[in-house]
Amino acid sequence: MSDIEMIRAARARIANNLRRTPLLEAPALDRMAGRRVLVKAECLQVTGSFKARGGWSAVSAIPEAERARGVIAFSSGNHAQGVAHAARAHGVPAVILMPIDAPQAKIDGTKALGAEVVPFDRETDDRDAMGAALAEERGLTLIKPFDAALVIAGQGTTGLEIAEQAAELGVEAADVLVCCGGGGLSAGIALALEAQAPKMRLRTSEPEGFDDAARSLAAGEICRNARLSGSICDAIITPQPGDLTFPILNRLAGPGLVVTEDEVLRAMALAFRHLKIVIEPGGAVALAAALFHPDKIEGEAVIAVATGGNVDAPIFARALETLG
Amino acid sequence: MSDIEMIRAARARIANNLRRTPLLEAPALDRMAGRRVLVKAECLQVTGSFKARGGWSAVSAIPEAERARGVIAFSSGNHAQGVAHAARAHGVPAVILMPIDAPQAKIDGTKALGAEVVPFDRETDDRDAMGAALAEERGLTLIKPFDAALVIAGQGTTGLEIAEQAAELGVEAADVLVCCGGGGLSAGIALALEAQAPKMRLRTSEPEGFDDAARSLAAGEICRNARLSGSICDAIITPQPGDLTFPILNRLAGPGLVVTEDEVLRAMALAFRHLKIVIEPGGAVALAAALFHPDKIEGEAVIAVATGGNVDAPIFARALETLG
Repeated sequence: MSDIEMIRAARARIANNLRRTPLLEAPALDRMAGRRVLVKAECLQVTGSFKARGGWSAVSAIPEAERARGVIAFSSGNHAQGVAHAARAHGVPAVILMPIDAPQAKIDGTKALGAEVVPFDRETDDRDAMGAALAEERGLTLIKPFDAALVIAGQGTTGLEIAEQAAELGVEAADVLVCCGGGGLSAGIALALEAQAPKMRLRTSEPEGFDDAARSLAAGEICRNARLSGSICDAIITPQPGDLTFPILNRLAGPGLVVTEDEVLRAMALAFRHLKIVIEPGGAVALAAALFHPDKIEGEAVIAVATGGNVDAPIFARALETLG
Repeated sequence: MSDIEMIRAARARIANNLRRTPLLEAPALDRMAGRRVLVKAECLQVTGSFKARGGWSAVSAIPEAERARGVIAFSSGNHAQGVAHAARAHGVPAVILMPIDAPQAKIDGTKALGAEVVPFDRETDDRDAMGAALAEERGLTLIKPFDAALVIAGQGTTGLEIAEQAAELGVEAADVLVCCGGGGLSAGIALALEAQAPKMRLRTSEPEGFDDAARSLAAGEICRNARLSGSICDAIITPQPGDLTFPILNRLAGPGLVVTEDEVLRAMALAFRHLKIVIEPGGAVALAAALFHPDKIEGEAVIAVATGGNVDAPIFARALETLG
């Protein structure tokens, strides 16, 4: 079970290997949102997303003899790169199952990190079964994308940094908006905030049609998405909240936020213009909620986690067109 | 006269008001350049460029009674926003002379910071004379864009950070490539490196056709550019190196580097893909030199300063097209 001590231990393993990403702000975004907006730029993390944290946390904790046989993960690309990066840094092989509709930038990035990429179909293949079979066959350690205590602990290190960096900027109370797929980052940050910034509240943020976390939080039990593909927010499309992550979110998170794809593209463009960072669609969902749904947020400041920046150029160009 | 003590004093005034921008890297860029590439992301600085440093350094050092009457600056946009930001933070008015062909993002950004914008023509107007007349008339303090000791000292704080951050990453010797207009940032960084990282060497980087610094360094005396407009690198198009900056560069800088506009656009696209930062054309010149002219650079590592990110969307979209 993940707790604050596991997050602190993960931070000690991660220190000096990954980046303490900046917490950025711009007056124009504050005016738009009607409150102060702080953006945790995890797109600037090693491998282009926060997933490097969970990957490092997990790979670095595997006993050495076991780790030497290698690791396996399934991912649309960000967890893939996080695990591949950690595996390479530890000198062990990585096998990654990736959906066939993953962005080319993520497939290329994963291969460039030395991983073996195995494709699967989100709609028809059972990635869990495929992963388990490969792991068994080669003696690989499976690193799940979110429903694993060490991964949640690694992602939670983001929350420790948010608490510290926001305090440096004079912010102690805020809704903390997190782009939510399976809930590993959201759960990790929620635990970190509970311990280090108890006046902050975790809010999951999701795209319309893939709002399993919001519906699960409203129902008090795990709900599934009707569809599993067809969103530009590939990074955070998962069937449902995890068995480990949901109880944490159910205890600590406020109501889930939901945004449209158009709002996501506009948030990407505004981050380009005012923050000078590149955010992928799935990483812009929280900022979109902060900017375009201010009435559903409480407090004088809001913190949005920009979870990743691994976006193909044509989609980014589409986002820029919204600037008019 | 600028020196390391002035730079340290500027840093003390700037601390807690501006950002310590990250020094980023990505394996793909290292492979391309054939050596380790570290990128100082000044595009993530407050106002979107390093100019906030010189602006703060100068405005914060003006005696209070004099400062209360206001400040004036001439700039294609980044110095404008740096001075406007510092003036607003100090509660004093700012008048900014901007060239009529400045990017809209910069004109809008300057106005949004509360400054009064006065347009001028780069080819036909004498901006120095216009600035002096306005300053006289309203009792404003003129803050020159580069040829002023306090401004050079402020920009030099970038060099102190580079020395520290590179050392943290294990790099003590490197060519440090800086996008060069009038030479304020280059001179400030050169002085900082001389004191704090003597194994590093400053290299000016400029676009073809506007390579006054490279030619001046080669000749050992100040040379002018034939043209003063017509480049996408608006931020660094100046008539010639400054009377204060050139002697510093002549003493400390290695040979100047020169890149093409196509290389600039490709460097912007590669920073998008691999670093997740937005760089404007004038801010991508140093990275372009690092990536596409490795034979003109010495050492196992190179540091490129990405000086700003205030770019209009259509130009950025053009850069993305180079990814093919």
